[in-house]
Amino acid sequence: MKLEKPAEVLLMGPGPSPVHNRVLKAIGQHTIGHLDPDFLKIMNRAMDLLRFIFETKNQTTFPVSGTGSAGMEAALVNMLEPGDKVLIGVNGVFGQRMVDVASRCGAEVIEVNAEWGRPVDSGELEKKLAAHTDVKLVGIVHAETSTGAQQPLEPVVEAVHKYDALLLVDAVTSLGGLPVAVDRRDLDIVYSGNQKCLGAPPGLAPITFGRRAMQKFEQRKSKVQSWYLDLSFLTRYWGEERFYHHTAPINMIYALYEALAMIEEEGLEERFYRHRLNSGALVAGLKALGMKPVVEDQYRLPSLITVWIPENIEDAEVRSRLRTEHLIEIGGGLGPFKGKAWRIGLMGNGSQRENVERLLRALSDIFNQLGHRCSLEEALSEAASLYQQQE
Amino acid sequence: MKLEKPAEVLLMGPGPSPVHNRVLKAIGQHTIGHLDPDFLKIMNRAMDLLRFIFETKNQTTFPVSGTGSAGMEAALVNMLEPGDKVLIGVNGVFGQRMVDVASRCGAEVIEVNAEWGRPVDSGELEKKLAAHTDVKLVGIVHAETSTGAQQPLEPVVEAVHKYDALLLVDAVTSLGGLPVAVDRRDLDIVYSGNQKCLGAPPGLAPITFGRRAMQKFEQRKSKVQSWYLDLSFLTRYWGEERFYHHTAPINMIYALYEALAMIEEEGLEERFYRHRLNSGALVAGLKALGMKPVVEDQYRLPSLITVWIPENIEDAEVRSRLRTEHLIEIGGGLGPFKGKAWRIGLMGNGSQRENVERLLRALSDIFNQLGHRCSLEEALSEAASLYQQQE
Repeated sequence: MKLEKPAEVLLMGPGPSPVHNRVLKAIGQHTIGHLDPDFLKIMNRAMDLLRFIFETKNQTTFPVSGTGSAGMEAALVNMLEPGDKVLIGVNGVFGQRMVDVASRCGAEVIEVNAEWGRPVDSGELEKKLAAHTDVKLVGIVHAETSTGAQQPLEPVVEAVHKYDALLLVDAVTSLGGLPVAVDRRDLDIVYSGNQKCLGAPPGLAPITFGRRAMQKFEQRKSKVQSWYLDLSFLTRYWGEERFYHHTAPINMIYALYEALAMIEEEGLEERFYRHRLNSGALVAGLKALGMKPVVEDQYRLPSLITVWIPENIEDAEVRSRLRTEHLIEIGGGLGPFKGKAWRIGLMGNGSQRENVERLLRALSDIFNQLGHRCSLEEALSEAASLYQQQE
Repeated sequence: MKLEKPAEVLLMGPGPSPVHNRVLKAIGQHTIGHLDPDFLKIMNRAMDLLRFIFETKNQTTFPVSGTGSAGMEAALVNMLEPGDKVLIGVNGVFGQRMVDVASRCGAEVIEVNAEWGRPVDSGELEKKLAAHTDVKLVGIVHAETSTGAQQPLEPVVEAVHKYDALLLVDAVTSLGGLPVAVDRRDLDIVYSGNQKCLGAPPGLAPITFGRRAMQKFEQRKSKVQSWYLDLSFLTRYWGEERFYHHTAPINMIYALYEALAMIEEEGLEERFYRHRLNSGALVAGLKALGMKPVVEDQYRLPSLITVWIPENIEDAEVRSRLRTEHLIEIGGGLGPFKGKAWRIGLMGNGSQRENVERLLRALSDIFNQLGHRCSLEEALSEAASLYQQQE
């Protein structure tokens, strides 16, 4: 039985984001050998494009052959050895995941907790660093996909480097949608995922390691516990030597390449601006429909909006009707937000005015049918006013 | 700069194998959500198809979100705990790799070595099991991609189960090209890769765990060292619960699905026969061109043929001319075979009479130009006689 054509669902959840036809065309190109001279050129160019988007000169910048979580694991298994002390900011699912992965590396994990939907307090983080001056690495989530909160990075960088620790940043839902700026901010290790603001299908985890991180890596006393993610092999495979390690996922790299080339064509500033503009308009429209954003303005991600579900409206029913009647996917809440909040993505190619308006139309339609009175006209006009301001 | 159309190279190396247009069309389909009801159906059907091809009823049968080596790592990190004793058959690169991965799990590794190009001796393996009755797991490579040797599995299974150990089988270059027959042979854990006899692009590692393996897994005292590959999460993600773990590589799974559907349409027996027939014809033709196979007849893989490079013929020059003048990729030798042998794949969709003849033509052409006299006519007629015998 042949694969049936998947439904043309508009992806406005927490990822994957909508994949552009150009990227889908690229992924379906003829598969060539992973050591073919043409493929080596594609690898080189993909690394250059990743450096452009990470805004870094780091040599060690490449896509890990796994999804975003494999990027997290690649960062931690290479940096940590049993007994190392790490400090991790936890204000959502992905901070919790970092704690779990780090403890599986045999590290001693200290947490800095914050309320879901709020950033981690850099003052509190600094206090913990002062109390544990032997912390090797601090992990923080730049864009919490479970809450829609953005972490201000500058004060964290300052605190971490004051205590000579490494800073690991999860940029899964930020890279390509808002500035990550690895070199300007002096971040040591940053990983992301294909399927959010980069606009490629899921399956690769771009990662970058700076000079300080590579020095620490070279001082390791024990072997990396993962053979598949061992940086000493991966740097030789992605480096000039082209030392065979594993067979790179050829067609996935075609897709990543094309998605990155589209970002280069658009320009980073233009792309960040587009993400800000559309998320602003969406929030204005959602408010007009009677919804309240979870995250306050200054910490709200432009790539992922969380809103409280209106009272007397049932989470599952609305999402199911969005999917079946309007062919739109949005995400449900996780953890304490389950059944209480929705997660709406405006990532990469998905961050478009027409998508903002299509979702507002669909939600207003369903809300009114469910007896939650609201005005579509008002919502569209609130959104439009944002677009007009920016023109 | 847009991705340039990759050259239409015919892949006759040790993998990736040629990907059929139907599969390339499938991978380029619209990306839907990883928890979309339509995608869940695709996941279920992909698992059913994998069970068909592994010839197993094992519930725990799914593709790992990484390449073949991630499948090896998934098997070992889930089965092993620090201090466990494992026995590994080593007669090529992939046996060596298993030793490395197992030792990174903290296991005590005992090797049973064999000459490259020869199978591991099951008598010797049994002797080592008798000397170390507390071995938990035995790892063996069914199809050594570095040598082209096939391991007879039945005597190994018998020895391993006599000593109550688990049998882990690397079927990367056999699954879909020759019988793996998990249930009939009573294999405990088997993994493979997308990009060999299954005919999909690289990026996924199908794996299956039997009852005995799952029982051992449930008796673990320590956490699995890899979060990404932890079977307790993966079984809940691929199982009925659909518990969110990582974002599955949607489009890669479209490709795997379609490649597996094509295998089902062809039929396993027909497919295995096709692999035997074409490899027989290729070997006959190569012999007529003056080349000697590395592996003796009874242990030769039908999916990967290794041949000694004729004297006075330079490895790199021939492979480079094959690639540039004839658009054919074959593989060089690894380890002790480097510069001495070629690895020629006839895998999946690549195992076709026209490919056999195209390669014989190209090699004969290059050989004659290099002063190594040989008759193309004779080579083609030797190959043809194999096809006639079978008609």
